[in-house]
Amino acid sequence: METINIGMIGYKFMGKAHSHAYRDLPLFFPTCIHPQMKVICGRDTNSVAEAAKQFGWDEYMTDWKRLIQRDDIDLIDINAPSDVHKEITIAAAQTGKHVFCEKPLALTLKDSKEMLDAVEAAGVKHMVGFNYRFAPAVMLAKKLIDEGQLGEIYHFRAWFLQDWLVDPNFPLAWRLQKDIAGSGSHGDLGAHLIDLAHYLIGDIHEVMGMNKTFIKERPLPTNMTGLTASVSENAEKGEVTVDDATLFLARFANGALGSFEATRFATGHRCTNSFEINGSKGSVIFDFERMNELQVYLSSDRDDVQGFRRVLATDPAHAFSEAWWPPGHTIGYEHTFIHEMVELMNAIREDRQPVPNFHDGVKCQEVLEAVDLSIEKRQWIQLSEV
Amino acid sequence: METINIGMIGYKFMGKAHSHAYRDLPLFFPTCIHPQMKVICGRDTNSVAEAAKQFGWDEYMTDWKRLIQRDDIDLIDINAPSDVHKEITIAAAQTGKHVFCEKPLALTLKDSKEMLDAVEAAGVKHMVGFNYRFAPAVMLAKKLIDEGQLGEIYHFRAWFLQDWLVDPNFPLAWRLQKDIAGSGSHGDLGAHLIDLAHYLIGDIHEVMGMNKTFIKERPLPTNMTGLTASVSENAEKGEVTVDDATLFLARFANGALGSFEATRFATGHRCTNSFEINGSKGSVIFDFERMNELQVYLSSDRDDVQGFRRVLATDPAHAFSEAWWPPGHTIGYEHTFIHEMVELMNAIREDRQPVPNFHDGVKCQEVLEAVDLSIEKRQWIQLSEV
Amino acid sequence: METINIGMIGYKFMGKAHSHAYRDLPLFFPTCIHPQMKVICGRDTNSVAEAAKQFGWDEYMTDWKRLIQRDDIDLIDINAPSDVHKEITIAAAQTGKHVFCEKPLALTLKDSKEMLDAVEAAGVKHMVGFNYRFAPAVMLAKKLIDEGQLGEIYHFRAWFLQDWLVDPNFPLAWRLQKDIAGSGSHGDLGAHLIDLAHYLIGDIHEVMGMNKTFIKERPLPTNMTGLTASVSENAEKGEVTVDDATLFLARFANGALGSFEATRFATGHRCTNSFEINGSKGSVIFDFERMNELQVYLSSDRDDVQGFRRVLATDPAHAFSEAWWPPGHTIGYEHTFIHEMVELMNAIREDRQPVPNFHDGVKCQEVLEAVDLSIEKRQWIQLSEV
Amino acid sequence: METINIGMIGYKFMGKAHSHAYRDLPLFFPTCIHPQMKVICGRDTNSVAEAAKQFGWDEYMTDWKRLIQRDDIDLIDINAPSDVHKEITIAAAQTGKHVFCEKPLALTLKDSKEMLDAVEAAGVKHMVGFNYRFAPAVMLAKKLIDEGQLGEIYHFRAWFLQDWLVDPNFPLAWRLQKDIAGSGSHGDLGAHLIDLAHYLIGDIHEVMGMNKTFIKERPLPTNMTGLTASVSENAEKGEVTVDDATLFLARFANGALGSFEATRFATGHRCTNSFEINGSKGSVIFDFERMNELQVYLSSDRDDVQGFRRVLATDPAHAFSEAWWPPGHTIGYEHTFIHEMVELMNAIREDRQPVPNFHDGVKCQEVLEAVDLSIEKRQWIQLSEV
Repeated sequence: METINIGMIGYKFMGKAHSHAYRDLPLFFPTCIHPQMKVICGRDTNSVAEAAKQFGWDEYMTDWKRLIQRDDIDLIDINAPSDVHKEITIAAAQTGKHVFCEKPLALTLKDSKEMLDAVEAAGVKHMVGFNYRFAPAVMLAKKLIDEGQLGEIYHFRAWFLQDWLVDPNFPLAWRLQKDIAGSGSHGDLGAHLIDLAHYLIGDIHEVMGMNKTFIKERPLPTNMTGLTASVSENAEKGEVTVDDATLFLARFANGALGSFEATRFATGHRCTNSFEINGSKGSVIFDFERMNELQVYLSSDRDDVQGFRRVLATDPAHAFSEAWWPPGHTIGYEHTFIHEMVELMNAIREDRQPVPNFHDGVKCQEVLEAVDLSIEKRQWIQLSEV
Repeated sequence: METINIGMIGYKFMGKAHSHAYRDLPLFFPTCIHPQMKVICGRDTNSVAEAAKQFGWDEYMTDWKRLIQRDDIDLIDINAPSDVHKEITIAAAQTGKHVFCEKPLALTLKDSKEMLDAVEAAGVKHMVGFNYRFAPAVMLAKKLIDEGQLGEIYHFRAWFLQDWLVDPNFPLAWRLQKDIAGSGSHGDLGAHLIDLAHYLIGDIHEVMGMNKTFIKERPLPTNMTGLTASVSENAEKGEVTVDDATLFLARFANGALGSFEATRFATGHRCTNSFEINGSKGSVIFDFERMNELQVYLSSDRDDVQGFRRVLATDPAHAFSEAWWPPGHTIGYEHTFIHEMVELMNAIREDRQPVPNFHDGVKCQEVLEAVDLSIEKRQWIQLSEV
Repeated sequence: METINIGMIGYKFMGKAHSHAYRDLPLFFPTCIHPQMKVICGRDTNSVAEAAKQFGWDEYMTDWKRLIQRDDIDLIDINAPSDVHKEITIAAAQTGKHVFCEKPLALTLKDSKEMLDAVEAAGVKHMVGFNYRFAPAVMLAKKLIDEGQLGEIYHFRAWFLQDWLVDPNFPLAWRLQKDIAGSGSHGDLGAHLIDLAHYLIGDIHEVMGMNKTFIKERPLPTNMTGLTASVSENAEKGEVTVDDATLFLARFANGALGSFEATRFATGHRCTNSFEINGSKGSVIFDFERMNELQVYLSSDRDDVQGFRRVLATDPAHAFSEAWWPPGHTIGYEHTFIHEMVELMNAIREDRQPVPNFHDGVKCQEVLEAVDLSIEKRQWIQLSEV
Repeated sequence: METINIGMIGYKFMGKAHSHAYRDLPLFFPTCIHPQMKVICGRDTNSVAEAAKQFGWDEYMTDWKRLIQRDDIDLIDINAPSDVHKEITIAAAQTGKHVFCEKPLALTLKDSKEMLDAVEAAGVKHMVGFNYRFAPAVMLAKKLIDEGQLGEIYHFRAWFLQDWLVDPNFPLAWRLQKDIAGSGSHGDLGAHLIDLAHYLIGDIHEVMGMNKTFIKERPLPTNMTGLTASVSENAEKGEVTVDDATLFLARFANGALGSFEATRFATGHRCTNSFEINGSKGSVIFDFERMNELQVYLSSDRDDVQGFRRVLATDPAHAFSEAWWPPGHTIGYEHTFIHEMVELMNAIREDRQPVPNFHDGVKCQEVLEAVDLSIEKRQWIQLSEV
């Protein structure tokens, strides 16, 4: 069995998800390359030591610069906050490490392009963490489109709806600060929708957006873990510098019309990452809150039994099902990361770039910036302009 | 245009539904025989006069015995309480009137058989009001079964769930008194399920049931209209003499297994009249609260897109759709009665018995009584025994 | 009982729906003013004569100009094609008739304003046919918003999705010709969404849209009835001059963000007229294909039972329920028209303008035109600019 | 950190699920006792060696009798076929090992009682694998009932519907042979429903059932793995000696009425393990295919917003959520086993019996046998009779 030694930087929400994926991979995909959980790296010694023990890493370190110098590390997994992605990636590439980087690649398009240049110049493997591509139901949608089952695509509409910011006392976490997070709903949630659009429909030709920060000031947090943070009473307030919601219209290169919405103010929606695609021969609907299901409509059905069917993507005919449980036994959020790591391991073995990789990360960033530009200029922006 | 003169006895819930059906029929089914709303009949002069005006009847009467003697009446529509069905039916048949009778036909199997004998002897047309057969989605289920699309039938399970008796202060309405209503949930709701089973699956071979009256005493009502009734504070209480819920298992003659449940104590269910059928090649699910929809599963679907499809039975391929609105524009409860009357008018024109008729009413009553007997004896009862 | 004499112009899809509404109104709403179905008017003698008989009108005429001169007519109901709305309305107002006009009021904003001026000058009652306001589930949404149950409104997103034009052989019906229909999906379907937005959320401040005609040529029809039309093989083709789909983003005056989509190319959707509203305290979701239901989320629910509840708007607590059937017994598309006519009759009795009236029709037209302008200019348009 | 050394017997479907649970437990529940994956045991050397490597066990053995003698093993996990549960359990208890045993405990009630006696006599901890109790949505149902939120319970209806036996060429796997499996749908699927009934509602007083084997002969398999098996063409056939479907009615000790159905012939249902509970104040509905959701109805809701709410049991208020992902990020089938093992580890630390334990296993077996007896005798059987 081949082994890849992993060095991971970051140990919060995504760090836990990635660690679990590496840990479960050999059990469910025993023929894959073995990802050895070698080193976990974080700034705070106590916290990272605890994470190493909990997550099952062999060692921990606090200095990522020393980590990337180690000869016994093959791949750097970056899930630290977005503002440090670029520096780490470029340094890691220069020492010849493969790089897996969480989305969004960087705070700006320019930065993400530099990252792509660096990994390409170094000739290493690079992957970006658009994990929702790896839900079997999403992969079924892709398969149906590629086979032509949906015909010519007319419409793509997508929403990523959450509601964790509706509470005005939710604190000013790092995800609400532009200098660390880059953007708000747009870069966090919208980025996933844009990547799914690229994956399923293809290139976007032009965009036109709007955004809003509904609550402009929030209490400063005293402590922060993953998505949550604590606030003391009478905490001072600071300015929210990112968008609470961003919507945009799009025209795809193939002529399809797109509609996108990312918001953290959709009361009642915990995590509705949803899209619908209408083509000349059929349609599909996906909702991450029911991530094992794909609604599929095919015009070729007999005229008295036409309707959206609820396909549970857990049958032998569906992607990755051989690794899991009998039909009807569902999987969850964390499995998207395991599948992602399967692709990463397979790409390394087959000496090809994994998909999605930094090209996809840059493409996503192009759309994010084009939308922001369209908002600033209050007009349509073609992707060729950014 | 041919015309049939109707004399209707009863003017409450069902009287309103039938009146509306007669009234709408010429608009939506202009080629049908015209049902002339000649006479409405009820015991209370003021009330029936008001009903005549509101519902659009030409005349009103208070003595049904005189009504059935009139030469200008062709068809008697009986929707008075169940305890008078028999007497009116037999008398009407003897004067040569066609008879439409609401379900259940009678309080007992014996009575219902006498009614069947009377209408058969008189050679008149007879129909029983199992209106749910006439939901287009139910008719689609029937069509799929008849065509063999579902293959051999293994399972029929059905529930009629309501919750209007959960409130212990709901009064002792006539539907809760055995001498007027015959039975409770069993005869009121279960009868519909049994008829649907006969329609869709076929004859029942044997049954085994249980029932319960959860709330055994209720306040006596001061006034009663349709399903509702008013109660004065400190009202005296009387005994509930019918079942609140009846469940039974069944074996069909064709080998299928059946499960039936009728209850007025299913909190949260206003009117869940629902069935599911599983066959060797496919399955269907119906729920009256979404009466325009049939969930259809077909094993012949490609193996990666198998799932229950939500068919909206409003397409040109579906029954009665040509009379209504464009696809996707739904119809409601009252339309089942209009379709019922279309069958009645068509049968009269074509000089055949409508379906369902008193044979179906008697068959339903047989099952109702077999279930009651199985409850009394605490053992399986074969239909041939009743 | 008071009576209003109706003269109706048009007898196709909407003519049937209106006729039925007038006909059913006295049965279900007996205390309303009685709408006497006096005269139906259409260009083709045979067809209108047949419609008069089928729908139940006392008389028919072929010349609407003579109809509006009759002293025995109180109200003109206009459901002829959109290009004649203006001329009839103005003429009818001048003879002092109340006017009910189907949406869209006119082909242009200018025309619709002239119509409003005419009815206002004449001092007659005027109403516009935005029937979806009258679905009880929609009225429940309105009530919850007005009571503040949803709090401050953040998001309104709405889709009207149909699929009857996906077939490239569907003929070039009048609804696809700009000179008769004014616009395509935008004016036909989008107009309903815009009116619901005005009703539920309030004024729109600015819009930015895009549209597309996916299939640019279609066979010329040989015959046309309602929404359907026949096509001969090898029929000549003509140009489609309206939009197949129009999407737009909007900012409401109250700060909410809006997203609208109207399309006839959403394969699998027969009539998905749907909206979702997210507020600071709750959310609602409506889908016309399940028109009796409103999904309601309230943040005030206990923290372990928060979720969208499926409310079946057939309980005594819901609008118009007293006229219909027991809880759980659903109503259909045509009932929206009956409720609409109840409002019309009540407004006449109470000597007030019905709601929605021509002010609402004009407001809708303003948004339609602003969107078209934003598409033409490829930039945001404020409503104050049109 | 305390550690428990596990010896596991069996390595197929359940062996994989248990291994994964032990493996993931320290990551997600770091404060639990650590389950050391010491020894995996199976009859075939090569297969068990491979399983040990894939699943992550320190060692493997082929002789379970030697395994239970080892001093360095604290707990025996039994997921071998049902016919060997008894012998292993009794032997393991006698050497003082804690025992976790998959359901059903044994092939007969008598055997299961002997197993209970053995573990009780030995004073060891014992647990039975009713994993569905550990879905957070099911635990929410339990909590609502225990708090009285549903009031007095009137109805419990439950179905476990699968369809993997509809294909007549599915081979005669061990689960279809009475001498190995004990029973068919009844013991495999029905057992879960019965345990959920015990957990949620309480003791059952009497039962009355029916069952059927729809396909009486099946091809003999050439090879068998987990739930699947291969068949050669023209394979000989053998007799199916278990039920394909078993249904039964039940009266609970608290007066509630129960309806149960377990079948492997419900075409279209991959794994619909579903129940509904109706009480005087509220209702809940669960479906394992959407295992993160509980439908909850509460009569105390305001009268205009009553309806079943879809609660996604992933909020901080829900069981085990602190270990997983942010709200709305769902978990899957395998997580029920992790939660099960949390209970097992916690019980050991707290020196109490885990729940569910062998008492629950015996109670389930009592009902299974009472149902079988009622089928044989064609009459009601009280639990006190078995």
